[in-house]
Amino acid sequence: MLPEINIRLPEWVEGFLAICPEVFPAVEDRMNFMIALARQNVRNETGGPFAAAIFDDAGRLVAPGVNMVTASNLSVLHAEVVALALSQKAVGRYDLSDGGRLIYELVSAAEPCAMCFGAVLWSGAKRFVCGARSEDAQAVGFDEGPKPADWAAALEDRGIAVKRDVLREEAAAVLREYAAAGGVIYNPGRA
Amino acid sequence: MLPEINIRLPEWVEGFLAICPEVFPAVEDRMNFMIALARQNVRNETGGPFAAAIFDDAGRLVAPGVNMVTASNLSVLHAEVVALALSQKAVGRYDLSDGGRLIYELVSAAEPCAMCFGAVLWSGAKRFVCGARSEDAQAVGFDEGPKPADWAAALEDRGIAVKRDVLREEAAAVLREYAAAGGVIYNPGRA
Repeated sequence: MLPEINIRLPEWVEGFLAICPEVFPAVEDRMNFMIALARQNVRNETGGPFAAAIFDDAGRLVAPGVNMVTASNLSVLHAEVVALALSQKAVGRYDLSDGGRLIYELVSAAEPCAMCFGAVLWSGAKRFVCGARSEDAQAVGFDEGPKPADWAAALEDRGIAVKRDVLREEAAAVLREYAAAGGVIYNPGRA
Repeated sequence: MLPEINIRLPEWVEGFLAICPEVFPAVEDRMNFMIALARQNVRNETGGPFAAAIFDDAGRLVAPGVNMVTASNLSVLHAEVVALALSQKAVGRYDLSDGGRLIYELVSAAEPCAMCFGAVLWSGAKRFVCGARSEDAQAVGFDEGPKPADWAAALEDRGIAVKRDVLREEAAAVLREYAAAGGVIYNPGRA
């Protein structure tokens, strides 16, 4: 028998979404939502201090993602990967933009690691909004990997608009809360 | 209801594995297996011309992966991501190396794209063996994304040994077979 994998968000997410609006008009609204989702992931002890989501051009949530590396035992399940995959499942396309015609936005409570940088490239997302800086994630011990020196410009070169530092301090506070609570820093071992 | 995702290999894979050995002692054995798996993915029309797998230090298959982007409508389901995730599921750890103590090898019929480069970093794989070059994938139209100029050295710097060009020509032939058959080159649209 071959192994198979089921990716589903933690159970608390559905109740959390039920008390949130469905449309988030301003970028700060969307980022505040991501920061709250990341904080809930920490407090529910269901993964790392990261959350992301895809929104359509009207600010309507398509699907959220939270970091599920430790809970799922899968190193690829960073918040951005989960949000992109669940959103592609929701719209039924591997290219969210449907050939470049549609504007979908990825919002993440933190800048991408080396893997998620690449995942954004292939997703069809046309905008990418980030909260905490990679330096903030590194400051609590997370390895971000070797990204291109100007990764944001590399995305812009491929038609993906990048907006950084949206509510950076508020987003970085969740990273510090996780570290202070003794959360697992899940970089792979190098012994 | 939140969307959820089930990742399972195409149905033909189980029958294909049943006629393969379980242990592949030489690196060329492992690469020949990957090339055959990639070719079957093309001929069964279940995805792009890519396959990868994790092997333990004795050359025993842990879990394979094939590219499932078009069949699953998920842009993250490159062969390496599938192989890493199914192998982590099989061993029950997000760090294959279990803190650096165990040697697992990722073998891929082609060099990694920008996303898979990052996915390898976080997987706990300690060796990475590649067949076709990124240039071979680009020659048939696949975008590999902006990787670090010396991505292999970047992996080596983090304790992951890299071996390239194993049966490169045989592996590149599968890429050309896919393109000649009119296979979908699934880069996201930029209209």
